[in-house]
Amino acid sequence: MRETQIIDRIRGLARVRHPSVVRGIGDDCAILRPRPNEDLVFTSDFVLEDRHFTLETHTAARVGHKALARSLSDVAAMGAEPVFCLVSLAVPAARGARWIQRFYKGFLALADQFAIPLAGGDLARFDKVVVDVMCCGRLPRGEAMLRSAAKPGDRIYVTGQLGEAAHSAWRRPLLPEPRIAAGVALRRLGVVAAIDLSDGLSLDLARLCRESKVSAELSANLPVARGASLDDALHGGEDYELLFAAPSGKRIPAAIGSLRVTPIGVITRGHPGQVKLDGRPIPTKGFDHFA
Amino acid sequence: MRETQIIDRIRGLARVRHPSVVRGIGDDCAILRPRPNEDLVFTSDFVLEDRHFTLETHTAARVGHKALARSLSDVAAMGAEPVFCLVSLAVPAARGARWIQRFYKGFLALADQFAIPLAGGDLARFDKVVVDVMCCGRLPRGEAMLRSAAKPGDRIYVTGQLGEAAHSAWRRPLLPEPRIAAGVALRRLGVVAAIDLSDGLSLDLARLCRESKVSAELSANLPVARGASLDDALHGGEDYELLFAAPSGKRIPAAIGSLRVTPIGVITRGHPGQVKLDGRPIPTKGFDHFA
Repeated sequence: MRETQIIDRIRGLARVRHPSVVRGIGDDCAILRPRPNEDLVFTSDFVLEDRHFTLETHTAARVGHKALARSLSDVAAMGAEPVFCLVSLAVPAARGARWIQRFYKGFLALADQFAIPLAGGDLARFDKVVVDVMCCGRLPRGEAMLRSAAKPGDRIYVTGQLGEAAHSAWRRPLLPEPRIAAGVALRRLGVVAAIDLSDGLSLDLARLCRESKVSAELSANLPVARGASLDDALHGGEDYELLFAAPSGKRIPAAIGSLRVTPIGVITRGHPGQVKLDGRPIPTKGFDHFA
Repeated sequence: MRETQIIDRIRGLARVRHPSVVRGIGDDCAILRPRPNEDLVFTSDFVLEDRHFTLETHTAARVGHKALARSLSDVAAMGAEPVFCLVSLAVPAARGARWIQRFYKGFLALADQFAIPLAGGDLARFDKVVVDVMCCGRLPRGEAMLRSAAKPGDRIYVTGQLGEAAHSAWRRPLLPEPRIAAGVALRRLGVVAAIDLSDGLSLDLARLCRESKVSAELSANLPVARGASLDDALHGGEDYELLFAAPSGKRIPAAIGSLRVTPIGVITRGHPGQVKLDGRPIPTKGFDHFA
């Protein structure tokens, strides 16, 4: 099958319309018509064979879902609503047109949940499966939640449960659910400091602290998922929950919809990026590609 | 070296400011503040080791240049000015921090030419070098040049010369120059139909014709680069020139700045996507990853 035929099939699948996306697949670029008084946010994230998944544990549809979910999770962390996405996909010749179609079906099933169009991207042959997803989100001007906005005295919260992905890991890979609704709700509550948990609580909290030039003290009552260890919860990664900080005077609900919100510590003055548990610095053992 | 240290170095290199990019590297997403009455265009393009370059023929800096140039060429084809870019880079462990830094230096040298910031992306280890560049451009609302806007009777033009990249190919790889200034000039002249030549004249013209539901007749006087063959010019690819169509009554200058503009044929009614040379259909032999 030729590239044009495959792209025609993808175009057929990617039919979701969005009023702001005036042109999608089929030109040199996708075209977005921004609305007044909005900011746009952009992220791109790899999902690489044998780094983020294996072809043994992940079906093509699951690879597609995971690839989009990773980028949507970053959009959620800003408090934005997704608008559209681009996907660059490279696949080995051994994976036929059917694998590619199943990938897009998994990808588009998640895109449809958020009513966002796949507006373009790239498609190529390569030795291994490579996916890079760019996602664009929108929010009212100046209201993005930032890694750099945490202040000493803020309480630290996390959505959902931690460590489940690490616990079940390669045996039974989870389909991450991007916390878009929670991110928008938190932004509307006036939360200004947030990050998503992709590489593990210890590493991602350290990143938030580093950008905010603060430290953090975790309490012992982390919302550890059933069956997971404290180590899974602290360092496991792939939870795709939201971690955020808010002034102690701000009322944060115990749940957003059915999603639990747990206070897990406080932001403190101190060495920027340092995270303590029970008063002792913890190593940032989360997933570092280059460590 | 850890990921955070490498990213700190990249942040140090990527210091170009842009008034519309209110946040760059360092958060979950980059933030763009759109201006009134503009459309934004988006493209993402792979540059893959042993598909688009080899480590023997391309230095790290050349890989960086080429990766950004490919995306900028798509922005040029819409008649847009670039605003910012994201780059996702995966590199084998054998390529150290120095290779990565040289890649970014090559990438950012070209970004600086267009005064656009590198606003984010991703960084990972992988078996081979993988680059995916997302580039955003802007233009006045509704004025994008499109593949789908060519009409029967339009004259077909091309900027620059064809076949040079194919002719010199792997022996002496060229540094492509994205035709941003030419794209903007053509859009301001009122040109509405264009595509960039990345995969070869025969294939890219067929794409433009397919999207516009028209055919094309090429004349014999193609601007073939010195040393290149007609075959290189027709099917070679990697020229990164602009191909466009304009009504026969519209005055198109013979050059834009020092860049030659050559009329090379006419748009005709007929089988959508068919391209003829001297009255005979030519095969679309350009670069198809899946052929």
